[in-house]
This record gives sequence, C-alpha cells and structure tokens, in this order.
Amino acid sequence: MPPTPVNIDSDDPTNACFEKHWPRFFEQWKTLVRFPSISADPDYQSDCRQCAQWLHDHLGTMGFDSQRIDTVSHPIVLARRPGAADCPSVLFYGHYDVQPVAPESAWETPPFEPALRNGRLYGRGTQDNKGQLFAVIKAIEMLHRQQVPLPPITILLEGDEENGRSVLESQLDEWRDRLKADVLMVSDTDMADADRPALIMGLRGIIHMTVTVSGLLHDLHSGLHGGVAPNPAVGMARLLATLHDADGRIAIENFEKDVIAPNVGEQRLVRERPGFGPDYRRRTGVDPVGGAPGIDPAERLGFHPCIDVNGILSGHTGEGSKTIIPATAMAKITARLAAGQDPETALRRLTAHLRRHTPKGLTVTVADAHVGGPALRVPLQAPAIATARETLRDMFGVEPLGMWEGASIPVLARLAEVSGATPVLVGFGLPADRVHAPNESFRIDGFRDGFRFATRFLTTLAKTQ
Amino acid sequence: MPPTPVNIDSDDPTNACFEKHWPRFFEQWKTLVRFPSISADPDYQSDCRQCAQWLHDHLGTMGFDSQRIDTVSHPIVLARRPGAADCPSVLFYGHYDVQPVAPESAWETPPFEPALRNGRLYGRGTQDNKGQLFAVIKAIEMLHRQQVPLPPITILLEGDEENGRSVLESQLDEWRDRLKADVLMVSDTDMADADRPALIMGLRGIIHMTVTVSGLLHDLHSGLHGGVAPNPAVGMARLLATLHDADGRIAIENFEKDVIAPNVGEQRLVRERPGFGPDYRRRTGVDPVGGAPGIDPAERLGFHPCIDVNGILSGHTGEGSKTIIPATAMAKITARLAAGQDPETALRRLTAHLRRHTPKGLTVTVADAHVGGPALRVPLQAPAIATARETLRDMFGVEPLGMWEGASIPVLARLAEVSGATPVLVGFGLPADRVHAPNESFRIDGFRDGFRFATRFLTTLAKTQ
Repeated sequence: MPPTPVNIDSDDPTNACFEKHWPRFFEQWKTLVRFPSISADPDYQSDCRQCAQWLHDHLGTMGFDSQRIDTVSHPIVLARRPGAADCPSVLFYGHYDVQPVAPESAWETPPFEPALRNGRLYGRGTQDNKGQLFAVIKAIEMLHRQQVPLPPITILLEGDEENGRSVLESQLDEWRDRLKADVLMVSDTDMADADRPALIMGLRGIIHMTVTVSGLLHDLHSGLHGGVAPNPAVGMARLLATLHDADGRIAIENFEKDVIAPNVGEQRLVRERPGFGPDYRRRTGVDPVGGAPGIDPAERLGFHPCIDVNGILSGHTGEGSKTIIPATAMAKITARLAAGQDPETALRRLTAHLRRHTPKGLTVTVADAHVGGPALRVPLQAPAIATARETLRDMFGVEPLGMWEGASIPVLARLAEVSGATPVLVGFGLPADRVHAPNESFRIDGFRDGFRFATRFLTTLAKTQ
Repeated sequence: MPPTPVNIDSDDPTNACFEKHWPRFFEQWKTLVRFPSISADPDYQSDCRQCAQWLHDHLGTMGFDSQRIDTVSHPIVLARRPGAADCPSVLFYGHYDVQPVAPESAWETPPFEPALRNGRLYGRGTQDNKGQLFAVIKAIEMLHRQQVPLPPITILLEGDEENGRSVLESQLDEWRDRLKADVLMVSDTDMADADRPALIMGLRGIIHMTVTVSGLLHDLHSGLHGGVAPNPAVGMARLLATLHDADGRIAIENFEKDVIAPNVGEQRLVRERPGFGPDYRRRTGVDPVGGAPGIDPAERLGFHPCIDVNGILSGHTGEGSKTIIPATAMAKITARLAAGQDPETALRRLTAHLRRHTPKGLTVTVADAHVGGPALRVPLQAPAIATARETLRDMFGVEPLGMWEGASIPVLARLAEVSGATPVLVGFGLPADRVHAPNESFRIDGFRDGFRFATRFLTTLAKTQ
C-alpha cells in the first residue's frame, strides 16, 4: 500500500481527487518506469516499443484517438481528443525514452525497479520525463472521467529525446496540420526552488562539432623536432584562444549579428532570477565571470550565445613525462544559441572561423558538425502565459519566477513554430532529482503538483474564449 | 656460429682483429642484452644489479680497478685503468639500463632473447646503450690484451639513464676528483646517415612541468552555466596560447635572455646539416615552420630553446557530445634549453609566466616541475674534437657532420663541467634502430664501426702529448 501523499491542502478539490486515486496512479507510474526504454542502446529497442504501446493503449482508455507511429528509430505516440469549442487547443509534448543507467553499481536500488524512499520514487525516468508527463496524463484522465470540459488536446510522445536523433523533427513538416494548436504544454523542467514554481520563458539553441588539428605523420621526438615542427597541441590552444577576446566576448565575425536583444520586460524579469550572488560560488566553486563583461549573468545565460570547449585530448596525458610533439589534438566544441540565431548559419560561421585561423603548417578538420536546434523564446505577453502564471500563483501563494534556462530542448523551438502554439513550460523537478545520473528520483509532491497544475490549467483554458 | 661481419676492409688492421674475435664479442654482447635491466620497473631491480655486476666483473678482467657502487636506485660501475703518461685522459660514460618493452606483443622476437636477422641484432638495449657501449669496451679490451699503449681511462656506467632519476648527478660533486679527465667519450648517438658519421657538437637542456587549470567543484552543465562560469578548457587554451607570439617566438619575459648565440664557426657548420628541405615533410608530414621565423631550422634546433606542449586532457574526449564545462584541464609542458640557460631560472620564469596569465576566475597550478639538465655545448676548436674528426674522416672517407642534436642527455652537461673534459659524442646508431620502441636492433656494422672508432681514437690519444 503506497503512502498517502503528504502536505494535502484539504481546501483544494484537486487534492481530494488526487488522494482518492493515488494508489492506482502510483501503481501505473511504477509500471511505466519498469519499461527500460533506453533509446540510445539498441538492446532496448523492443522495450522502447512496448513502452510506447503501453502509453498508446493507456491514452485509448481516456477518450483519445491514439496512434503508435513506427519510425526509423523508436515509435512516436500521437493521440487526439476533441474538446470544448472555441477555447484554446493544447499540444502536450513529452518523451518516454530515458538516459542510460551506467554506472549501474552506483544505484542504491535497481534503476528499473521503482522504489519509494523518503517521499521520493527512485528509478530511471521516475522524473525525466515519465513521472512529469504521467502526472499530466493522470490529470487529463481524471477530468475525462469526471466529464469536466477540457480543451481539444493532442498528445505527442517521442522515444528519441535522450539520444540526440532528430526523428521527431524530421516528421514535423509532414504533420504540420495535425500539430496546430494554441498552447504547447511541456512538463520537463524544474521549479525555481522547492517553494517557488517557475515558468520557463526561453531555452537556448545548440550546435555541436569536433575539431582536430593535425599534420604530423606520427608523434615526433620533441628534442629532435622542437622549435622546427609545428606543434598540434600548441596549435589547438592557439586556435581555441581565438574563439573569445581577452574580455570573454565571442570573437567570431558576425556570430552575434542576428541575436534578438531582450525587450524591456524581459530584461527586467530575467534579472529577478536568484543564484548568481555568493551562492553561485558555493554551488560551483567559481564566480560567474565567464562570458561578456558588463552584462548581468542571468541575462547572459538567457539572452546571449556562448561557445564552450567541452573536452580536449592531445598527446601524452598519463603519469610522468613523454617528450613528444603530439601528432594530433582534438577538441569538442558546443555553442549555445540565443533567439534570432539560425543554427545552420552559426555552424557555418564557427567552422569558417576555425578554418581561417588554421595554425601555421598544420591542418584543421571539423567533423560531426551538427545542429541540435534553435533557441526557444516564449512571448511574455501571451494569454496562455498569463493563465499559467495565475494558476501557479494560486497553487503556491507566491509569484512564479520567469526563467530563461540557458539549456536546450532541441525540438521545442521547431515544434512551437510548426504548431503555431505558445510554449508553456512548467515542470516540478528539482536539482536533487539527479536526472541523467544514478539514483534518479521524483518527489511524490512533484508528481502531485504536476497533476494539480495540469488539472487547473486545462480547466481554466477550457473556460477561456 | 655467428656470421662474419660484412664489408671488412682488409687494409685496416682493426678489421682483421675484429674478425678474429667477433664470435666471442657476439656471444658476450648477447649475454649483456639478456639482462632485462629495465630501470623504471621495480620488478627488475635484481636484474639491473646483476647486469651491473657482470659489467664490473668484465672490466676487472681487462686491467681495470672496478667498483660496483650501490645507490638509492641501481648500482653505478666506476672503473679506472692507468695509461700512458702525459697524454689526454679519458672518461667514458654509458648506461646499462634499458627502456621498458611494452607493448611486448609488438616484438617479433622476445626483447631479452637477442636474435640476429639481416645483419642486425634484435633485442631491447642491443643499441641503446648496451651495444654501443660494449663496442667501446671490446676495443679497450683488445688494446689491453695486445698491450698497445692506451690513455688513462675511467669508465662510468649508470643504471638510471632511462628512468629520469638523477642518481648519478647527485654523486658528481662528491666524485669530482675521480672524474677529472681531458676527454669525455660517449657512444650513445646516431650517424648523420648510413654513409656519413656525425660528431655531436651540442645537446639542448630540458625542463618539465604539468599545468592544471581548475576552480570548478565538478563538471557543470554547459547549458545552465555556459557564458556564466569560466571554462577551464578555454582558459587552458588561452593560457597555452600565451607561451608564443603570433609568429612562433617564445613570448616569456627574459626566457631567452641568457642564451649564448652560436659563433661564426658554429653558424656555418650547423647549416650544413641536411634534412630540413623537402625531405623533412616526407619524414614528418609537415614543413619545418615551427619556432621563430627567419632563422635556419638547423640553427633553431641546435641553438634556440623551444617550449612544447606534450599533451592536453580536459573534459569529455570520447564518442559523441557531452555538454559540459569541464571541471579541470591539464597540460604537460617541456622546454628544451639552449646553451647559456640555467634550467632552474628557466623553470622559474616559465612558472611565473603561467601564474601571471591565470585565466579570469580560475586557478593555475604547476606540479612536477623539474629540471632534466642544462644544454651541452662542445667547443668546436678543442683538440679532442679535431682528433675525433680526423679519425672519422679516415674511417669513412667523408667529412663527418658536426650536428647539434636538439635532444637531451640530461647528465652530460654536468658531467662535462665536473670532469673538465671535452665531450666527444660519436655514435653509430640510425633511426631504423628503433631505440625506445619495439623491435630495437643494432647493425653488426654499427657495432664494428664503434669498435673501430674507439680503437683508433684511443690509440691516437695515447700518442698525443
């Protein structure tokens, strides 16, 4: 018998309803978590398929016309339920695939045997994204059973979010008509902190590449060639040093040309975000001094691109000294993109810059250059944002924080564009949930908050003309 | 029955003598190679000791007063033989320790079971340095047996050349009186090519360090912190980029201040060295465009310091993309020093430069900073050099090439200083010998040339007043 969720506010009718049905919700959530739907690992292909089928069947029992659409990778579930006339329609996006579990030995309980401890359900995907999406589905189910008016809802669940494949993205143009909606609802983000909800107002885009500096046939003896042969490790350092100027600004020609600056409202809101004071150093070990100077860190994170070197490898990196000129040097680079930047253009400009700064006598090769996705910018004044904001304020008794995340959910910007919908990104995760890491968990309270938010938000939308 | 060495010049009496005794030389050389005297591996401690003992016993049979001197590491053999009065005295330096053999599977025959193939003896140490030093010892033995006048000879054999420990160096001051000599003879280098002998006129010094850029408590999510947290991989690149200016000159304050420029004779000689034309690209894959522009490559190699990055490691270097700001970045740096540079001062200047260029918000740590040794500069006009030059010209019928090597034999500069002797570095190695690599070998011809050179050089010295 699962525990009754704590902190029930008995004045809230959604709480009573949640309490009553909680044992069933809990069992079904655990069933969903038990599918080891690791999208990146071909050994779990059939588990991904079974997980998609279970969700497809489940949506079929709650008024949805559901399809399981097989793809070159894992299936997509696309389900539609008619709703109240003349109110805003909803497209709900989620993903049922999960991250790999390695190192499995670091898990206190097996990743696909969900276990309840201290008010949290532990297991891979309990939060990201199975737990968060299932709370919304359970809210829709309850409203459906109680015959409460709902807006028209399309549910889109993919199985390739965690593996970097653009399976869904390649379908978007074909499905343009089926995906049209007014509100794009996503529950895959965090709260501002445990007591304060957040509305995500923007995500940055991302591009990736691997750069190699080479030219030597093999490692050379640094005594016999030092000062004569060009050194690829030194060349790589000099190349990467051209990406920024001495103050930390991006130094690539025209890279920031198309960036849309934050408007007055956004500038005001973005700086409300806490966490860049002394607290930042406590959490990270450093002061927030990366990037362009003279701009508030929260604004840099939300509205400016950045270029990061994610890794470098060259030559001898073990114990002791090995007196070589390394044959090659390799670096992994990602750039986060701000609103307005076209990812393909950014990729082209970065690549051209690297080629133009080829170190003397050596060769620069750019490999695996690819676009994750463009930035997502949520219009501050959209009616759906006001509705979400009021709903959260009512639920928590505090003003929700508008947050520009800096991170990326690659498909969302394109999904917002194709659907024409206002993105409403409200999630109830916390850093302690350890998504992508061993011992992932989700608070029962977080699941309940997701259920409550979806219940209230959807019923409010249904009443909106 | 071993093969008779080829290419015997019957007009040369040393050849006839070599031919007669070759079967015994060959068996003894193989015995010496069979000791797995890997100085870097503690498992071979006793083998190093047995090898030293064998050499000690061997020298005792040929007129030497020999000592096996135990140290904190492997024994040193120090042997002395009186000689003709009033002629220059000789200090012969060699090392009996060898490099590790990994990967052992890459050896065609086991590294410590010497095997003859195609005029070469294969095995670890067959050349570096057991083969080269044993050819000299066999020359001394023959002259001793034939009662040919020899100069006073001190033989100094160490067992810590290949492992970077300064065991011998720490003894030098104490042994100053015992090591006094006029000529410091070493046979641990290569010929200019298979037909042309070389006299090594200089070696560069070397210093080592490991640099770390850090500050973050752990890897950070590049979306949530990119453009806010300083990036140690970017910081390392920017730091390493300060070591040279845009043209490739060393950009460290005063680093080259004490360098002794080559004199007119050295400048002329150094440029005779071939190998930096189109041939260089064929051998290395690159043109000789590293280092300061406007200076002949051979002169850069012989008379200028250089700073090389031997390795860099930071963050994610495996397959695919990992969107992190790496917690740390590490680089291995070595500098080769020119004549005139004090290694301790160079180490201090390099360290101070790195600290002074600490990337904003991050920390620079210099670890394992240590001196290999200073540069060795051989006086062009020394009588012993003229003798060696004439001996080689007689043997090969061509003018030997004076070569400045660029590489380092760390102890030699100090040994030359303490002994007061003129370094005569003549060796018969070739790049095809693959020293330090699997399938090391030494040409039987190279062994014979070492024997012939030592025979003639030493008898000429004995006749010199």
